[in-house]
Amino acid sequence: MREIYLDNAATTRPLAELKEVYAAYAEEAWQNPSALYACATRVQKQIDGAKETLLHAFGGQGHKCFFTSCGSESANTVILRGAKQKKNMHYVCAGAEHPCVEESFKFLQSVGCGVTFVQTNKNGVVSPEAVAGAVNENTALVSVMHVNNETGAKNDVERIAALVKARNPQALFHADGVQAFCKEHLQNTSNIDYYTVSAHKLHAHKGTGAVFYKDHTPIKPYILGGGQENGLRSGTQNTLGILSFAAAAEYFEKRVDPGYMRILRDAFLNECSNIPDVAVLSPENEEDACAHIVNISVLGVNGETLLHTLEAAGIYISTGSACSSKKGKSRIAAALGLSQEEAAGAVRISFSPFNTKEEVCVAAREIAKNTAVLRKFMRK
Amino acid sequence: MREIYLDNAATTRPLAELKEVYAAYAEEAWQNPSALYACATRVQKQIDGAKETLLHAFGGQGHKCFFTSCGSESANTVILRGAKQKKNMHYVCAGAEHPCVEESFKFLQSVGCGVTFVQTNKNGVVSPEAVAGAVNENTALVSVMHVNNETGAKNDVERIAALVKARNPQALFHADGVQAFCKEHLQNTSNIDYYTVSAHKLHAHKGTGAVFYKDHTPIKPYILGGGQENGLRSGTQNTLGILSFAAAAEYFEKRVDPGYMRILRDAFLNECSNIPDVAVLSPENEEDACAHIVNISVLGVNGETLLHTLEAAGIYISTGSACSSKKGKSRIAAALGLSQEEAAGAVRISFSPFNTKEEVCVAAREIAKNTAVLRKFMRK
Repeated sequence: MREIYLDNAATTRPLAELKEVYAAYAEEAWQNPSALYACATRVQKQIDGAKETLLHAFGGQGHKCFFTSCGSESANTVILRGAKQKKNMHYVCAGAEHPCVEESFKFLQSVGCGVTFVQTNKNGVVSPEAVAGAVNENTALVSVMHVNNETGAKNDVERIAALVKARNPQALFHADGVQAFCKEHLQNTSNIDYYTVSAHKLHAHKGTGAVFYKDHTPIKPYILGGGQENGLRSGTQNTLGILSFAAAAEYFEKRVDPGYMRILRDAFLNECSNIPDVAVLSPENEEDACAHIVNISVLGVNGETLLHTLEAAGIYISTGSACSSKKGKSRIAAALGLSQEEAAGAVRISFSPFNTKEEVCVAAREIAKNTAVLRKFMRK
Repeated sequence: MREIYLDNAATTRPLAELKEVYAAYAEEAWQNPSALYACATRVQKQIDGAKETLLHAFGGQGHKCFFTSCGSESANTVILRGAKQKKNMHYVCAGAEHPCVEESFKFLQSVGCGVTFVQTNKNGVVSPEAVAGAVNENTALVSVMHVNNETGAKNDVERIAALVKARNPQALFHADGVQAFCKEHLQNTSNIDYYTVSAHKLHAHKGTGAVFYKDHTPIKPYILGGGQENGLRSGTQNTLGILSFAAAAEYFEKRVDPGYMRILRDAFLNECSNIPDVAVLSPENEEDACAHIVNISVLGVNGETLLHTLEAAGIYISTGSACSSKKGKSRIAAALGLSQEEAAGAVRISFSPFNTKEEVCVAAREIAKNTAVLRKFMRK
């Protein structure tokens, strides 16, 4: 059966090119990068090269990089070990963040820190002024995701960071860049103290993340031990994951047309506009919406049922982020302030550069067809 | 040039068989295991199957398993998030543990917990009675490594755990099993509350570890977020790493002769006995020494210099664990109470089932040859 994978915000198929990265790793780059002999120090040099590649893709301006095991560990490290620990610490966090960010702030609350959560609009966009307005003289760290993993809302993290610094130059700014990295480009990263990313959203492997941090910005290790990654992340480096991550970032830079996924999005939404009673939960304005994640609510239909009827046709989408799929989607629906009907009918469609316009149009037409059938059932 | 890799305690070459695991992962098991469609839930089932394989290899008795990114994260999780948090917590730790264990306990000390470090003997073996003697009524957790990564000392963790429980049934017991897993087998795991392991010491990939824990034993997540791994470790699972880990454990169970590495060790030490002034830092008694790690001190020679002269002959060994190689080896030398001369001349040789008797004899003869030359230089 023809398969159309449109759940690229959950994870992506590894690039075919990574097969060669694997072969090279398994043959000659499997040694422990901390060992003292030359074939091992060569591995460390490859890891250092991967950092350069990723920092370049990020557009680092005085930034450094260390590798972690995933986006969640990266965000945990920044939020729980970034900023200088002092009394009366205060934090600001946007209201519809990924659970790895939200849970880190809840942990800080549980140990007595003050955290202000700033509500987003219904599409997941947070107001830069509202974030800056929540900053006070004790604010140690502000965290706003670059692209929302549920709605594809794009936050202007450059502007938010600048406003935060204008309000309190001591406050540090973190952007969760997991869904944005290599897809949404930053012009000016100079006010972004920490930016956290993940490899497997980019057609590399699960098991590798990174933290970009400004040189001299406070950061301590979260995983303690042998002091790898310049003392910032212990544990033997996942060389295969790291080299694959860099290869994928290079692939995106050199071989992916930055406008291509916008074409897919427009084609998909255009096709969906023929379906009655569909609410687009993603932001309407192009500057507020990334190209690769669309969230629509098919009113009167249960999103999970729709997911499974599409699955029967070989089309894979989600009802929300995979990491919250098993817990239901109440958390994010509440954060966005969706109605019960909107939340029930919400499905997320997410594109990759490997999807075709035909695929997304087929998917939209299948949604239309199944919606018509499901609505008949619902009426019975 | 012929290459002889004898640094298998630092890391191991991936099994050739893992190429097929990679191909299967990249083709049909790359979906997000938390997604709701069938091809993703199949991935979750493969991960669950890997847990069964690993629990079987461990000899679990009422144990469960969750995956992490490495042995360091596993140990951090157990030490910093295992045991119930209460006032006046006390911990016991052996004296020559891996930095991921030692640093975790130092962190607990820094936040006001009491930690008793129990000195090992010169070979890295800790006395079971001394460990049990350090346990008091407030002891929450005791940690002793199964096989020492520097000397290959084997601790009788079954007996230590039983003595700890006899002294305080509420105290929980953790064994760092990173160097022991699938190489040293446990008869009775019923008193071992936590056992932590790593894939890349076993000819699988870097980037995957696991925690075996007794069902109903307290354990909280260290990496916070989407609640993967039954809420115990957030972050999208590293499916490739996990399936490779299970494949390697099966390989060890089915295809590795458990007595083979003992033959390598005996042959190596026999050959070394011809070199004058060599102190064997590993335990003498077979029951106290694992088969795959040997530490010798070539007195009057600098270990690092010896390492590089062997490297020139295509033979790879280490002066100590890779994770401390860049910090020097003062930490472990102090823990073991080595003399300055012993510490300076120490080199670690570690075997894998893929080494041959000829290889280890060639290595020993090269050590003899280089030692003679280096000692001449030193005398000049």
